[in-house]
Amino acid sequence: MRVLGIDPGLRNLGWGVIEAQGNRLSHVANGVLHSSGPNLAQRLLSLHQQLTEILHRYTPEAAAVEQTFVNKDAVATLKLGQARAVALLVPAQFGLEIGEYAPNAVKKTVVGVGHADKNQIQHMVKMQLPGAVITGPDAADALAIAMCHAWHVRAPALKVRA
Amino acid sequence: MRVLGIDPGLRNLGWGVIEAQGNRLSHVANGVLHSSGPNLAQRLLSLHQQLTEILHRYTPEAAAVEQTFVNKDAVATLKLGQARAVALLVPAQFGLEIGEYAPNAVKKTVVGVGHADKNQIQHMVKMQLPGAVITGPDAADALAIAMCHAWHVRAPALKVRA
Repeated sequence: MRVLGIDPGLRNLGWGVIEAQGNRLSHVANGVLHSSGPNLAQRLLSLHQQLTEILHRYTPEAAAVEQTFVNKDAVATLKLGQARAVALLVPAQFGLEIGEYAPNAVKKTVVGVGHADKNQIQHMVKMQLPGAVITGPDAADALAIAMCHAWHVRAPALKVRA
Repeated sequence: MRVLGIDPGLRNLGWGVIEAQGNRLSHVANGVLHSSGPNLAQRLLSLHQQLTEILHRYTPEAAAVEQTFVNKDAVATLKLGQARAVALLVPAQFGLEIGEYAPNAVKKTVVGVGHADKNQIQHMVKMQLPGAVITGPDAADALAIAMCHAWHVRAPALKVRA
């Protein structure tokens, strides 16, 4: 199963594609999309176009998006929500099922603890996807989200076998 | 000029189309879109599809969207932001210029005061668009936003003539 993970953001939207076969995960591609444009509508359009291109190029069968952390900065929450809408919309337009995971759940799955920092995540992602050249912390987060989804989807099957 | 106004919301997204010719405004259509689906991605997809259909059917030349009022309820702000992203994205996908107006600016333009309530807005919209059958308060707000945009776009031309 090919999984696309997305770490939504208006300025930097991290994405990562992995291939999951049984217990084996392998890296396909990763990157960071930057939105540009004179206003919010143009920036959302730019993200939508770039993310659509990623879906066309890598044809994932499932997607996973990080849940937005609602914080006290309402303006930042709003911006993130608008970028996240695009991150959810594009895979839905391709008919994909979309998993949503809280940041702590992703960290716990990939690093083993819920409070891991960005460096730890990047380190564990590199360890588990040998050979992957990671574009930056947002792309590492996106790969971690994809890995989290692959493990969660596989878990029920493992339980049946046990 | 045909203008589409949008009052964004995840549960109820108001829309209204008017035709502006010189000083004359006339009503074209209005309605309220409801999002449905088992999760946020499906609801955003549903809004995107319905709004795209409105654009295809009424072929507006400009769009205007109400600015999101950031309030203390971060979860509500986030939901509104996600619906608003779709409201901005679809007209941008059709290559339209999009005006953005604060709720108070819309009220001030249409009713004359910035603190008008929903009933006053609906009343003034009906007065200024005779014959229009208005679907509800969200559709009235959307028509008010379209009227606000038509007036703001026309204003520079009036200044040149003066």
